[in-house]
Amino acid sequence: MKKYSEMTREELLSEKELLEKRYAEKKALGLKLDISRGKPSPEQLALSLPMLDLINSETENFKCENGFDIRNYGVVDGIPECRRLFGEILDAPAENVIVTGNSSLNLFYDLIAHAMCHGVPGGDAPWCECKERKLLCPAPGYDRHFAVGEYFGFKLIPIEMKNDGPNMNQVEALITDPDVKGIICVPKYSNPQGISYSAEVIERFANLSPAAKDFRIFWDNAYTVHHLDFDGEMDEIPSLLRLAEKNGKSDMVYMLGSTSKITFPTAGLAAVASSAANTADIKRMLSFQNIGPDKINQMRHVLFFKNLDGVLKHMRKQAEVIRPKFETVLTVLKEELGETGIAEWNSPKGGYFVSAELLEGTAKRTVSLCKEAGLAITGAGAVYPYGNDPGDSILRIAPTFAPVCELPQAMEIFCISAKLAAIEKLL
Amino acid sequence: MKKYSEMTREELLSEKELLEKRYAEKKALGLKLDISRGKPSPEQLALSLPMLDLINSETENFKCENGFDIRNYGVVDGIPECRRLFGEILDAPAENVIVTGNSSLNLFYDLIAHAMCHGVPGGDAPWCECKERKLLCPAPGYDRHFAVGEYFGFKLIPIEMKNDGPNMNQVEALITDPDVKGIICVPKYSNPQGISYSAEVIERFANLSPAAKDFRIFWDNAYTVHHLDFDGEMDEIPSLLRLAEKNGKSDMVYMLGSTSKITFPTAGLAAVASSAANTADIKRMLSFQNIGPDKINQMRHVLFFKNLDGVLKHMRKQAEVIRPKFETVLTVLKEELGETGIAEWNSPKGGYFVSAELLEGTAKRTVSLCKEAGLAITGAGAVYPYGNDPGDSILRIAPTFAPVCELPQAMEIFCISAKLAAIEKLL
Repeated sequence: MKKYSEMTREELLSEKELLEKRYAEKKALGLKLDISRGKPSPEQLALSLPMLDLINSETENFKCENGFDIRNYGVVDGIPECRRLFGEILDAPAENVIVTGNSSLNLFYDLIAHAMCHGVPGGDAPWCECKERKLLCPAPGYDRHFAVGEYFGFKLIPIEMKNDGPNMNQVEALITDPDVKGIICVPKYSNPQGISYSAEVIERFANLSPAAKDFRIFWDNAYTVHHLDFDGEMDEIPSLLRLAEKNGKSDMVYMLGSTSKITFPTAGLAAVASSAANTADIKRMLSFQNIGPDKINQMRHVLFFKNLDGVLKHMRKQAEVIRPKFETVLTVLKEELGETGIAEWNSPKGGYFVSAELLEGTAKRTVSLCKEAGLAITGAGAVYPYGNDPGDSILRIAPTFAPVCELPQAMEIFCISAKLAAIEKLL
Repeated sequence: MKKYSEMTREELLSEKELLEKRYAEKKALGLKLDISRGKPSPEQLALSLPMLDLINSETENFKCENGFDIRNYGVVDGIPECRRLFGEILDAPAENVIVTGNSSLNLFYDLIAHAMCHGVPGGDAPWCECKERKLLCPAPGYDRHFAVGEYFGFKLIPIEMKNDGPNMNQVEALITDPDVKGIICVPKYSNPQGISYSAEVIERFANLSPAAKDFRIFWDNAYTVHHLDFDGEMDEIPSLLRLAEKNGKSDMVYMLGSTSKITFPTAGLAAVASSAANTADIKRMLSFQNIGPDKINQMRHVLFFKNLDGVLKHMRKQAEVIRPKFETVLTVLKEELGETGIAEWNSPKGGYFVSAELLEGTAKRTVSLCKEAGLAITGAGAVYPYGNDPGDSILRIAPTFAPVCELPQAMEIFCISAKLAAIEKLL
């Protein structure tokens, strides 16, 4: 088969006719498919249900390691055994870890709100007083990260994503502006491209010398144990906190993580690992904000996993559930689009997404065609700050939530739509 | 026995000698007693343990009323059945209730942070732009409320507490200042005095006409179902939200509540009931902050209580546990201080505290004597903004956490210390 770009007008028209026929057939099925959000499937959630049995009315000992009753007030920074568990997950010393809340998004939001109202160590004013505040946003990236930045009045500056992470020349140039207060990253199996930052890129992060003394790297390591093939290739990245610590720059770092996609999105745990000064600052904030997180849920997680090894064994089971879904997505993409020359995509080794780069100017049209045929997909542009994809070409596919039997249909609709949009553009 | 104020110097000296002997005896016991914080006791916590069995690995249906999987993302405002439950507890329409987090303190903090960064309906700027912002603080009150206000840079203005609630003449006069952005209240079984606001006071709250268009009443109804005697006298107060709604002023109201002292302080639920505009505003905030609260824990509470009647039955059991403790406190206070004329105290019908008003200028000294004899008690002044009790006379007694067998000793130490401090002052 010829590439679309090499086809004559007649060949394109005839291809279009075939595609329109297939599209009409799919549409007539009245399907309701969804590959829009990175949500665990019910099969994945079921793997964590035994955790709910571990603390109950028969439990005899409700004391955590430091002697507190896990049912009562106190321990704002999280029970010691759970801080240790997250220390292993995030690759940070347990004493630099605070466990609180149920999502890293919430922690990111609260840390931004905290910096806005009170400032952070190293700064001399709350961020709200910086009227031209800016946030660097490697893009494509996570739409909800961008939304938080925009909500708090930051100017969002897109940073080019390369195969080994953000364009660090660009980052290093931009942080000479003292109004640039931070950067938000997903350093491993990134959302949506599945890119893991290289050691060299991370070393450059650990060595940044920003003009703003209160600059922060929000390092959302949301997918750190989310490998797709535990017997195959897995990405590993160095600990930004440990590297920055060596450079005397650890105040710059907030490493975030959660069990949202390890146990339950609703009833998971979140944690932040940071420098001694930041940890003290966050603990002080928490001492005003609340009188302790849900320590019963923290203990459930500790009893269920015990340590990082337990987490990895659990994630291996999750990989068994979701790997076939990723394989289906990649197989259909290859079959349908492989020879057309109108699309490229990544084959991630972990995380929750496949990112497809379509012919320029066709992403929006593709989404609208998908929708009309009963397939929900994240809106075009969502992976860019302000929803502004300059090339109108990137779409994010989230394969985990849909039943595996629905994915071939969903991906066929996706590919037919992408091809139709491309031909409309080329004609 | 004579009142201390009517004793001669010799009589006081002889009384002092007796007290010093008793004090030395208590001190020699090397006790470690604590009546400092309003914490549920282990017996109270045990009453809620069966709740933990209600969702487990055998549970078949994880759908809440609106069809969402309670294990997964979504439903930022709380599952409908739990909003209804809190609607009953707080006396507000379910559609005006949002359930999130695990303490009303956390909600208060988050709402203040939200107003600081984004402003609230009715206002035309974030509160951080109001440099002279002020918060009215009925006092004696809750130290952690004051701490949050101070942390966010509000000038705290104490409001006199009368027997039926705050001095409303003072409140009405002060809100003519547009920099007065809010007032923080515990309207029922108040912390620490156990005062329930009268219907007349609450009607005046519902009718306030503050100069600040974004003025807010933070109505922390933390003890609404915390009666001490379910067969005796119980206070009831009208719903501020419903009254304000009638006056077209419901945007002024945030009614807060939690199950921190109903189920588990660590793993309870919190809720806010407010106007339609505020509810939409909070829901929008939450849609940036997170992707749903802990719905599994919400469902646990719903299954455990079913409705307000279930909550009240549960609180009756709690009252059986804590009423003897309050009785012990009041008995010892009466025996030891009743005829001395150096102290007055309340006999609360609910809540978590007994508040004692000692001879002016003796509260700090009393606390220090208690401490020396092995009794931890909340610091003098804590119940006032900035820790500044103008009369140095109010102390808060928290009877719930200590084992009932320890309370007579603890209260004896308290009374001996108060009497010694009074005599030192009078001599």
